[in-house]
Amino acid sequence: MDVTTARVVLIIFAFSSLLHGSGGEIPPKPTGGVTLVPPVLPDDGPQAFPDAEKANMPVFTMDYPRIQIPFEITMWVLLASFAKIGFHVYKKITVWVPESCLLITIGLIVGGIMHSVHEEPPAVLTSNVFFLYMLPPIVLDSGYFMPTRPFFENIGTVLWFAVVGTLWNSIGIGMSLFAICQIEAFGVQDINLQENLLFATIISAVDPVAVLSVFEDVSVNEQLYIVVFGECLFNDAVTVVLYNMFNFVAEMPVVEPVDVFLGVARFFVVGLGGMGFGILFGFTAAFTTRFTSKVREIEPLFIFMYSYLAYLVAELFAISSIMAIVTCALTMKYYVEENVSQRSCTTIRHVVKMLGCISETLIFFFLGVVTITTAHEWNWGYILFTLLFAFVWRGLGVLVLTQIINPFRTIPFNMKDQFGLAYGGLRGAISFALVFTLPDSIGRKQLFITATIAVILFTVFLQGISIRPLIEFINVRRTNRNLDTINVEVHCRLMEHTMFTCSQFPPVGVLFDEAIVHSQTVREC
Amino acid sequence: MDVTTARVVLIIFAFSSLLHGSGGEIPPKPTGGVTLVPPVLPDDGPQAFPDAEKANMPVFTMDYPRIQIPFEITMWVLLASFAKIGFHVYKKITVWVPESCLLITIGLIVGGIMHSVHEEPPAVLTSNVFFLYMLPPIVLDSGYFMPTRPFFENIGTVLWFAVVGTLWNSIGIGMSLFAICQIEAFGVQDINLQENLLFATIISAVDPVAVLSVFEDVSVNEQLYIVVFGECLFNDAVTVVLYNMFNFVAEMPVVEPVDVFLGVARFFVVGLGGMGFGILFGFTAAFTTRFTSKVREIEPLFIFMYSYLAYLVAELFAISSIMAIVTCALTMKYYVEENVSQRSCTTIRHVVKMLGCISETLIFFFLGVVTITTAHEWNWGYILFTLLFAFVWRGLGVLVLTQIINPFRTIPFNMKDQFGLAYGGLRGAISFALVFTLPDSIGRKQLFITATIAVILFTVFLQGISIRPLIEFINVRRTNRNLDTINVEVHCRLMEHTMFTCSQFPPVGVLFDEAIVHSQTVREC
Repeated sequence: MDVTTARVVLIIFAFSSLLHGSGGEIPPKPTGGVTLVPPVLPDDGPQAFPDAEKANMPVFTMDYPRIQIPFEITMWVLLASFAKIGFHVYKKITVWVPESCLLITIGLIVGGIMHSVHEEPPAVLTSNVFFLYMLPPIVLDSGYFMPTRPFFENIGTVLWFAVVGTLWNSIGIGMSLFAICQIEAFGVQDINLQENLLFATIISAVDPVAVLSVFEDVSVNEQLYIVVFGECLFNDAVTVVLYNMFNFVAEMPVVEPVDVFLGVARFFVVGLGGMGFGILFGFTAAFTTRFTSKVREIEPLFIFMYSYLAYLVAELFAISSIMAIVTCALTMKYYVEENVSQRSCTTIRHVVKMLGCISETLIFFFLGVVTITTAHEWNWGYILFTLLFAFVWRGLGVLVLTQIINPFRTIPFNMKDQFGLAYGGLRGAISFALVFTLPDSIGRKQLFITATIAVILFTVFLQGISIRPLIEFINVRRTNRNLDTINVEVHCRLMEHTMFTCSQFPPVGVLFDEAIVHSQTVREC
Repeated sequence: MDVTTARVVLIIFAFSSLLHGSGGEIPPKPTGGVTLVPPVLPDDGPQAFPDAEKANMPVFTMDYPRIQIPFEITMWVLLASFAKIGFHVYKKITVWVPESCLLITIGLIVGGIMHSVHEEPPAVLTSNVFFLYMLPPIVLDSGYFMPTRPFFENIGTVLWFAVVGTLWNSIGIGMSLFAICQIEAFGVQDINLQENLLFATIISAVDPVAVLSVFEDVSVNEQLYIVVFGECLFNDAVTVVLYNMFNFVAEMPVVEPVDVFLGVARFFVVGLGGMGFGILFGFTAAFTTRFTSKVREIEPLFIFMYSYLAYLVAELFAISSIMAIVTCALTMKYYVEENVSQRSCTTIRHVVKMLGCISETLIFFFLGVVTITTAHEWNWGYILFTLLFAFVWRGLGVLVLTQIINPFRTIPFNMKDQFGLAYGGLRGAISFALVFTLPDSIGRKQLFITATIAVILFTVFLQGISIRPLIEFINVRRTNRNLDTINVEVHCRLMEHTMFTCSQFPPVGVLFDEAIVHSQTVREC
């Protein structure tokens, strides 16, 4: 291990120990912190002041609770960022092991250290924080950089796999697990059908975060990428509906046909409502950017605010927020990039990527941490069969659904593509966050949590690590997206930058009207 | 009023009314929100589930408390951004009235509306939120774009005005007000000397936010700009020490000489400690960016994280956080801009500007809102004399201090520059936030709050609006910074972009080694 690596690793662990000392609880009001003398600080709210007895003026004080929340958030983000830097020191590792696995491993280590010193994980790690703050940036990143034309060319297949595929998985896994529960030897007879279906819904949703981190390294052909990726974004509608439905009926002694009908109605509300809000906010953002020519500094802000609003409003009405934000990004992207300045455009793209990247890093990292610090309930039979059924039903589902959809496709999926589709169905943090939101009235909630974590770790590690060699081995059609010649790239960009420079100065820019039109054609490359 | 303006104004008021309906209180735990049927939502924590009696599955639900915090923050930011767009519709207004005044006015209007419907201002408007979340971006913006060479050439003058000037103002205003308090007619005899000095400290600090927003529009010569601006950044050290000192001694019956000595010692701890932390984090950031070549997406994040950490750690030890973050930005800027990619560099600059801009907008906006919604205590005598003394002591201070420092300056300040220095000493939101942190044990706290607001509004409106015509009238030396010829600019940028494009491709880039060195020289323009 060379000096630089040692330094980096040392820094990582130094930060970890710093965090341990910080304590996990967030006090409701800032009270007096650790001080060497009574604190006399500008602070909101009344403070206990020194008594009338003589005390000298403090020269050196500390007040940690006041800054605790922003400080801990900053430190966790820094730690995760250092981990990312650290991985690339060993180039060979990142070739074979996806970053997601490495991050989970680091998280497991940190979680282990925290557990051994009896620290609680930071109180910020709740499902609310995950759904409201960590997930939106990733989904915005996916939606914003989604290649639009290939996406809409495959929209039918995407929806087919997203809707029917997720239904197939949920019901298949749920019924199989219920059958397993009937076997006395496994000791899980108290789990009824609805609870099994609820759990199956949680673990059958393919996760965009996990898929993204793996498929980015494996350059599969675009059709495959679009379908897997579109599927994991759009299955959110189905997951939301099924989760609510099974959650609701888990409490009901009787399920009436009208409820099934209402469930179908709800699916359309959730799906179309999500898309509707997305389109609405997307067009509003596009319209707003028509007026931002005098306030160039805050142009990127509008993009982020509108996307986030689309997400929040969808969450407000309990419809598919992921679909809302993806549709918003898809809708506004081209209008916005024409309206805003070049610098704002670069900033938007880079910030979207940055936020998505750091959110993804934090999610996997915390996945590792919370895996250690959560109370588990292990059951060999249930968990092993969960893994088996998740794998089998995914494979079967892809097989059957592809047979049905292939006649309608211009480029049918061959067996190798189907393998990629099936094997690339990784589960991730969305399942993890969803299982934590299960009501406590469900008796075997701990078992479900443990089983979900097992499925996630299994798919992310096993499938995540092996997918690349397997894809290369069976020679799945690869993409040729990245193979522009250097010559083409240099000339594209040179023309683009030259046109941009000249267009900054209106009198000069007028002379280049034709050239500008040409540059827009060139921009396609 | 044309259609577009009407639309924009309508949107602003529509948003305002939306916010009113949202309620100001933030409940501690998400409870069931407004629903048409019992809510069945993925939400953290146990929820009240429908009874065993039959209830159909909900098709349409709403859960506002869950998303309340991020939603309200997003809406306030959007509203402030719309206000900024709206101002530029009337071009003539922004020429004569600084944006700060317009924003305060909008804030006053919104505050008035909220007050009339008996709404509380959002619970997020606390001093903690201001100091921890709103102020750092602005100060980072100032520090990052501070022209370094002129700054260090004037460092002596800057420190002279920052330290001695602020002391002069605080003590002068404090003693004068104490003299006024002795006059029975004003009815403020209960305010003792220490409390007067404490209040004087709060209002004598020239505010970077206010000064920045005004001086950006008025292109004064660089010396003047640097000195005023540097002064308001570096007077923070003095303000912190004096505030703590007078806060402390306000409780003490007796002030011993040792306390004065400790006060001086504390000043050095605060000032040098702030700069020390800033330099430490600045160099750490510069060092970290050496290893970020493989993680380009998150490069900008390190800059923001390190600057913010410098600020937070300084706050932790109750030393000058403003000096810490400014020094950090000054230190790391050049190293970082050499180490990171061009896109990251653009992103960092643009995001720093964006965050600074939106923070500044929000601060003035909330200043207006909270002005209306706070309980006031008016006292004609005290407040009018406060305004008078703030003005007079500032003028006297500049006069006297300039006489002393001029012999040491290469470019002495003439009378017109001194006028600019004195008249440009605006107070702003830092005073506002500080006065709210006064302990409740101070009897006339409400009067102090009202007086501080009066001083801020007076300086921002009167001086802010009149400074531009006055500066033009008396013909203060202007800057020639913005007068590059178009020819020079076009060629600078074209060369820069061409070099960047070619440097992206290492084999090609090697051929341009000499040209790259040349471009760095060109980059100076």
